[in-house]
Amino acid sequence: MDYQVIKVKEDVLQENSKRADELRKYLKSKGVYMINVMASPGSGKTTLLVNIINKLKNKYRIGVMEADIDGEVDAKRINELTGVKTIQIHTSGACHLTAQMTHDAINEFGVDNIDLLFLENVGNLVCPAEFDTGSNINMMLLSVPEGDDKPLKYPLMFEVSKIAVITKIDTAEIFDFNYERCEQNIHKRNPDAKVFKVSALNDQGTDELVKYLESIIE
Amino acid sequence: MDYQVIKVKEDVLQENSKRADELRKYLKSKGVYMINVMASPGSGKTTLLVNIINKLKNKYRIGVMEADIDGEVDAKRINELTGVKTIQIHTSGACHLTAQMTHDAINEFGVDNIDLLFLENVGNLVCPAEFDTGSNINMMLLSVPEGDDKPLKYPLMFEVSKIAVITKIDTAEIFDFNYERCEQNIHKRNPDAKVFKVSALNDQGTDELVKYLESIIE
Repeated sequence: MDYQVIKVKEDVLQENSKRADELRKYLKSKGVYMINVMASPGSGKTTLLVNIINKLKNKYRIGVMEADIDGEVDAKRINELTGVKTIQIHTSGACHLTAQMTHDAINEFGVDNIDLLFLENVGNLVCPAEFDTGSNINMMLLSVPEGDDKPLKYPLMFEVSKIAVITKIDTAEIFDFNYERCEQNIHKRNPDAKVFKVSALNDQGTDELVKYLESIIE
Repeated sequence: MDYQVIKVKEDVLQENSKRADELRKYLKSKGVYMINVMASPGSGKTTLLVNIINKLKNKYRIGVMEADIDGEVDAKRINELTGVKTIQIHTSGACHLTAQMTHDAINEFGVDNIDLLFLENVGNLVCPAEFDTGSNINMMLLSVPEGDDKPLKYPLMFEVSKIAVITKIDTAEIFDFNYERCEQNIHKRNPDAKVFKVSALNDQGTDELVKYLESIIE
């Protein structure tokens, strides 16, 4: 049974990479840059997106695809607070998005009038990291309340993310969080990772992140 | 491909349930009660365990199995702060524990002198809920910083957990967390769930949880 599972998983991942490459080509042909946003549940993905979208929306035509196992609170919130085009994807219980699921959602969403597409993945620090969604870049969030040791315990998420955003820094005083140790832990997993520190609620540090995003969006 | 994946998953879950039942029988024969602890990364599983183990250890011979994808900070911490027998399980990248993995770990650990066994599952609010580990009961944690809407987004975790512990209540002032709404959301998923509110660091609310655990441990 174990062998069968591993074999199927290898096939699935290989097939997924192929589909992801196809999707990236398609998005390029449509002039769309896609950012895959990943993090644990409750680490502040939606709040950060609202903040940076409001800073980017005069420059780019933005779309947001919100993936959750159930519920649609996030899609509603993003749309209400930014006015940009949003859809909610339900994963039918799945713990991550595949490239195929992302492609299907994009087909439904329509990207004719979109330059910049944010994909908010399922809240999960493990599985989404295994599946290339077809995005141009992965941006992961780690919130201060989660602790600075997370890169040690969830290696793959940090390895595959070019951007690591430490969120909720306004709460650092009440949590035992060491930025220096955290950055060291992140760079152990990915020496090239760009690390940002933000409080999206207090609008701290998000200008730097927005500036960086503007520099990489093609 | 999709059908194949679903079929394999069904087989895996069916096989897993069988193994879980076998493991429960084995543990019963050894006089061991096992509690499976699940939550997102950084929601305070280890801190809560340290607190309640120190309250329970004079009454029970306790063991702790810590599962992580990588790292061994938790096992060390539990052992240093409670003195009870602890091992670290590495899941080789897997996002959850199966009954078979749990059984293998128990065989290595040895439960001859154990009455109460805590299994700290991988930090993940999705996948661990799908796999019966062979435990007697599931205890899930939701930390205040994660937000009161999580039962809406991660239904299965709340459905399969008889005990739901809201942690880090000492931080409620700075987060927009509504206990009443959270409890309603939890009971929508599982009307029989016992909900506790604790701050393990400040030793708030853990006596009630300990009392409840003492009432159910066989």
